[in-house]
Amino acid sequence: MPFGPAFTPGEYARRLKQTRAAMAAAGIDVLIATDPSNQNWLTGYDGWSFYVHQAVILPMEGKPVWWGRGQDANGAVRTVDLAAVEVTSYPDNYVQSTERHPMQHLAGVLSEMGLGDARVGVEMENYYYSAKAHAVLFDTLHGATPVDATALVNRERGCKSPEELAFMRKAARIAEKVQTTALDLAAPGLRKNDLAAEIQSVCLRGDGEDWGDYPAIVPLMPSGTDAAAPHLTWNGDVMQTGEATFFELAGCYRRYHVPLSRTIYLGEPPDHLRRAEEALLEGLEAGIEAARPGNRACDIANALGAAMERAGIDRGARCGYPIGLSYPPDWGERTISLRSEDESVLKPGMTFHFMPGIWMHDWGLEITESILIREAGPAEAFCTLPRKLFVKS
Amino acid sequence: MPFGPAFTPGEYARRLKQTRAAMAAAGIDVLIATDPSNQNWLTGYDGWSFYVHQAVILPMEGKPVWWGRGQDANGAVRTVDLAAVEVTSYPDNYVQSTERHPMQHLAGVLSEMGLGDARVGVEMENYYYSAKAHAVLFDTLHGATPVDATALVNRERGCKSPEELAFMRKAARIAEKVQTTALDLAAPGLRKNDLAAEIQSVCLRGDGEDWGDYPAIVPLMPSGTDAAAPHLTWNGDVMQTGEATFFELAGCYRRYHVPLSRTIYLGEPPDHLRRAEEALLEGLEAGIEAARPGNRACDIANALGAAMERAGIDRGARCGYPIGLSYPPDWGERTISLRSEDESVLKPGMTFHFMPGIWMHDWGLEITESILIREAGPAEAFCTLPRKLFVKS
Repeated sequence: MPFGPAFTPGEYARRLKQTRAAMAAAGIDVLIATDPSNQNWLTGYDGWSFYVHQAVILPMEGKPVWWGRGQDANGAVRTVDLAAVEVTSYPDNYVQSTERHPMQHLAGVLSEMGLGDARVGVEMENYYYSAKAHAVLFDTLHGATPVDATALVNRERGCKSPEELAFMRKAARIAEKVQTTALDLAAPGLRKNDLAAEIQSVCLRGDGEDWGDYPAIVPLMPSGTDAAAPHLTWNGDVMQTGEATFFELAGCYRRYHVPLSRTIYLGEPPDHLRRAEEALLEGLEAGIEAARPGNRACDIANALGAAMERAGIDRGARCGYPIGLSYPPDWGERTISLRSEDESVLKPGMTFHFMPGIWMHDWGLEITESILIREAGPAEAFCTLPRKLFVKS
Repeated sequence: MPFGPAFTPGEYARRLKQTRAAMAAAGIDVLIATDPSNQNWLTGYDGWSFYVHQAVILPMEGKPVWWGRGQDANGAVRTVDLAAVEVTSYPDNYVQSTERHPMQHLAGVLSEMGLGDARVGVEMENYYYSAKAHAVLFDTLHGATPVDATALVNRERGCKSPEELAFMRKAARIAEKVQTTALDLAAPGLRKNDLAAEIQSVCLRGDGEDWGDYPAIVPLMPSGTDAAAPHLTWNGDVMQTGEATFFELAGCYRRYHVPLSRTIYLGEPPDHLRRAEEALLEGLEAGIEAARPGNRACDIANALGAAMERAGIDRGARCGYPIGLSYPPDWGERTISLRSEDESVLKPGMTFHFMPGIWMHDWGLEITESILIREAGPAEAFCTLPRKLFVKS
């Protein structure tokens, strides 16, 4: 079977059970999961259809319902387990119309399910739940009460099961290949877009039988003074001697991500980069040492921060976020942030991109690790690539 | 200069003037453009930073302001013309926080600009303006009045300037290369992900000096019965004799897209595919003939629909949308839809993906064209690839 749910029925059952417990705790009767990552996690639904409105409707009892555009129901029946998930859809003239809105249709579906006066959990802070969607849904469903369920499912996704970790280990092998390709090919005179082409190609080829999926973010790979900007992509300029280029890349296996960043300097690195490298390696090691079950997110950030402070570097940004199943535009889970004000307790099975990027006024340096919180002891790094500033003379 | 605005100052000045006229007509004092495509179109801002809140603030007078995350200000000063655009930013602890929201900061910026009691245009229906963002912005900015400015800028983007059309012609050359690669390589036994890797690689390599940018949608390329589902991507299965595969791909030059779809059958195509091909080619020709200035969007759809009806095919979906500058998750402009209920008048310089995909219960066929509405006469197709069902025995 070419497409189909990525996991066992038991795995999805676990996820529904966990999510319903969280719904009960939040006083939610029915959850509208508009985040495509949450839809996939709850039902297996996959496809690049999230540019139109769609959702998983999760009542407290009975099957979850995948709801979306008529033509995408064809994708739904191919990617979910139809024994466990209902599929329903709205007509095409609801799409990007100024006369009607898909949320009017969703309101009708909820009413038919007897949920017209329910406490409806909605993901208020999500790319795929617009201000208009919210207004239309509750203007139509007069009797319902909105409850902010932002990140409710995302938080349940935090601790990965053995099945999920197996996927992430495959993604890690792909991430190593992708990063190694970038570092191997980098050379003066190489056009950045040609390098991006190789990176993407290796990423999708994957690792043997483990085919590569598309990461939720494209390669970030600015050079020289542009490396001050963390989110520039590429252009047609060539790599040059005397410049550092960072590669923020990921491997992706069936939507599970393992990001990994390294930096390469073409030529002899200046002292400030060497000092930053030294501080960063010390900070990464200290952070991973602090990344233990029972410790808090801030403990990782503070351990890193101490090393940065000793080197006189003020990063001024969080140093990581949870990772796993994702769709564009972000491969983070948008729950915990590794920063000094976040006191979330670390638990076994949590996975983070420990991402202490340094972006100064006119230079940048990225050496990062994706890590797993273990049952005991310091975190495990998913990848084994040497942790250093790469140099090519 | 490696990065920087893609167009001349005069081009951006035209865009601001047009947009301000539309704002005046809508009674808007200041526009908050959260759509990354609109931000780029108004100021040149580029970067994969749209996973956090950012916007272009456009008052009726004075410079537009790019507002975003602190670390992304580094990208802003590299991609906008600082003579024409102000750059301002919010601290990193506003990012994905449960304690504070970036829209609180934006409210402060607007107040400082003397716009605390303005009529504020916001893009209510947009991936990058969440329900929460809207609630927080106007809870904080008590005196302001929200005005729905959904697609206000998108509509101004509809008619392309000569500078923009030059970019789209470059994207068209890339689209032809990408599509030709897919059709040339397709063969029984080829893994779909390996083909996706080649497609992405050719796409980013671009066309000679014209380097390839990332399309806003990844390759859509399901095979056989899965081709019934328009938005499936790929997996590690191999292509097989006796299956049709459609390739919905695009070339992208500096964020300007030209999508193009073709279908290949490995083996001898069944009669139903041949009949659908014949109807589709007739419908495409009739639609392009109807795509003239002064005609309406529905005229294209109805011309196609007549050919489909004669062949007994009920597509049940719109057959196209405007294209141009875009970011994920959509390469459409989300204004006009080519369907019988849309009476928008076609104007010279408008560009559409004329997209009469056929997705039936257990098969699919895509042959599409990106087209330009000319000063007179039928539309011009951007690409010159043979318009047919490709067959490899």
